[in-house]
Amino acid sequence: MPLSEFTLIYRYFSALGRGEAVDLSVGDDCAILHLDATERLATSVDTMVEGVHFPADSFPEDIGFRAVSAAVSDLAAMGARPIGMTLALTLPEADELWLHAFSQGVAAAVAEYRLPLVGGDTTRGPLTITVQVLGALPATQALLRGGAAPGDELYVSGTLGDAAAALAFLAGDWRPPPDHAEYLLDRFNRPRARIALGRELLGRASAAIDISDGLLADAGHVAAASGVKLLIEPALLPLSPALAAHPSRQQAIQWALTGGDDYELCFSLPAGETAPAGCTRIGRAIAGSGVDCGLDVDMAAGYQHF
Amino acid sequence: MPLSEFTLIYRYFSALGRGEAVDLSVGDDCAILHLDATERLATSVDTMVEGVHFPADSFPEDIGFRAVSAAVSDLAAMGARPIGMTLALTLPEADELWLHAFSQGVAAAVAEYRLPLVGGDTTRGPLTITVQVLGALPATQALLRGGAAPGDELYVSGTLGDAAAALAFLAGDWRPPPDHAEYLLDRFNRPRARIALGRELLGRASAAIDISDGLLADAGHVAAASGVKLLIEPALLPLSPALAAHPSRQQAIQWALTGGDDYELCFSLPAGETAPAGCTRIGRAIAGSGVDCGLDVDMAAGYQHF
Repeated sequence: MPLSEFTLIYRYFSALGRGEAVDLSVGDDCAILHLDATERLATSVDTMVEGVHFPADSFPEDIGFRAVSAAVSDLAAMGARPIGMTLALTLPEADELWLHAFSQGVAAAVAEYRLPLVGGDTTRGPLTITVQVLGALPATQALLRGGAAPGDELYVSGTLGDAAAALAFLAGDWRPPPDHAEYLLDRFNRPRARIALGRELLGRASAAIDISDGLLADAGHVAAASGVKLLIEPALLPLSPALAAHPSRQQAIQWALTGGDDYELCFSLPAGETAPAGCTRIGRAIAGSGVDCGLDVDMAAGYQHF
Repeated sequence: MPLSEFTLIYRYFSALGRGEAVDLSVGDDCAILHLDATERLATSVDTMVEGVHFPADSFPEDIGFRAVSAAVSDLAAMGARPIGMTLALTLPEADELWLHAFSQGVAAAVAEYRLPLVGGDTTRGPLTITVQVLGALPATQALLRGGAAPGDELYVSGTLGDAAAALAFLAGDWRPPPDHAEYLLDRFNRPRARIALGRELLGRASAAIDISDGLLADAGHVAAASGVKLLIEPALLPLSPALAAHPSRQQAIQWALTGGDDYELCFSLPAGETAPAGCTRIGRAIAGSGVDCGLDVDMAAGYQHF
């Protein structure tokens, strides 16, 4: 007898539903959560499709972890505290081994972000994972895209281009040494959303966004929302040792500028503000519009779903 | 040049994002909503896949309206006030005509339920629609599945089996007269979630659920969560004139018992409580477990995704 969706959901996910803000978890028509009286709700949704957002031969553990991280990254970019998520899973068949492995990856992300899974839906169809995240924000604060002003300095967290380099390695386009390859694959498969950094930036950063579609594309959203021009200096872009070791520095910079999926934060600080540890200044805001990095970059290499 | 996902989302959906509880809508990394200080958050997620949850030749307007209604129905079943939703749309291609029509259906649902669309994600892949709904509940009240007690009376809203009869008509299994066919198709394509009824039942009903998988299946969830046995009398099931006119009463009752997609509410009231208008008593709760309708029903005819 085929497993019913209820059996699937309860068997694999109901243990992941406990959390501080959760009054009622998986098992009724809705989950119920509470916020503190002075908090507001932040919410975002993110879908991953097999063959579009991850290679068809990805490990289910990685698919689960990465799908949650990608959604949580939007909470980080707002400076929100994670309180819960729902997961809508469309599966070609009820494959218990696959589901078990996938649930391990989701469980790792639940632990990493202290983000309980409070609801879900399982349907039959082509493999698609949609994660909706819920977070809490102080009543009067949020990191928005629209606050950068001329004179502000532009920063990013971590290193850029690693996930794009990993995909190029998987496609056979280059062959890094084994330890570099392992590092890059981990960056693609197990991105860490910058929740702690986002909360540290609340009240300090004038604008912020997470880099999911590539630095130039995402910085473009900040420039447009803020009504400024962003100047980015390619020489300042932080590259991992693995990426810096690529034989073509031009290729490495291209990935750092246009590769998506790193889930680092890009943010602006008023001049003179000290950036948090692990962040690198990459440029600044001036009057004008758009993003200028002084290079003729192939933007099509950046990620576009259509 | 293909449309980017941002262009798609902004063109069709950004006008639907205003609402009382919405502080920041589509356009940043997250939406921001607020609850009243005495309220809690109710949330649920629902996915519809082409060819599984709706026929492949459905009108995009109907797909949009119905996907939202199915998700909103879970808010109704908790007694929650809708405050916002997000929509994750996976599309085979960026078809502007399809998107325009689909957005009309979503817009009709936004108006029907006063439920602003505050966030979304558009990806390329097989047609899949995931709607996450957000609602507000009083701090100390919710309609749960687990509160029915022996002696309570069991009720449903509206009429049952219409959506299943519509699907049978579409499959060519029977041929109702044109006005009945039109009514039944409207019931399948444009289900109305029972938000007002849910809020009316808050503090009165001992248990409630929405009927999305079929009366017997969903009543089974109430019975299990409440630790009671539910007796359902087939002769009491409310049938629409269109369904009552079916040549086989046995078939009509079968659809009413096992057909999904009607999105009516099934709820229990303590004996002596008067039911709201438009609701019908169909049975009662006694000590025991499971659901008994006195018939040998083919449960496989009820909806199971796997």
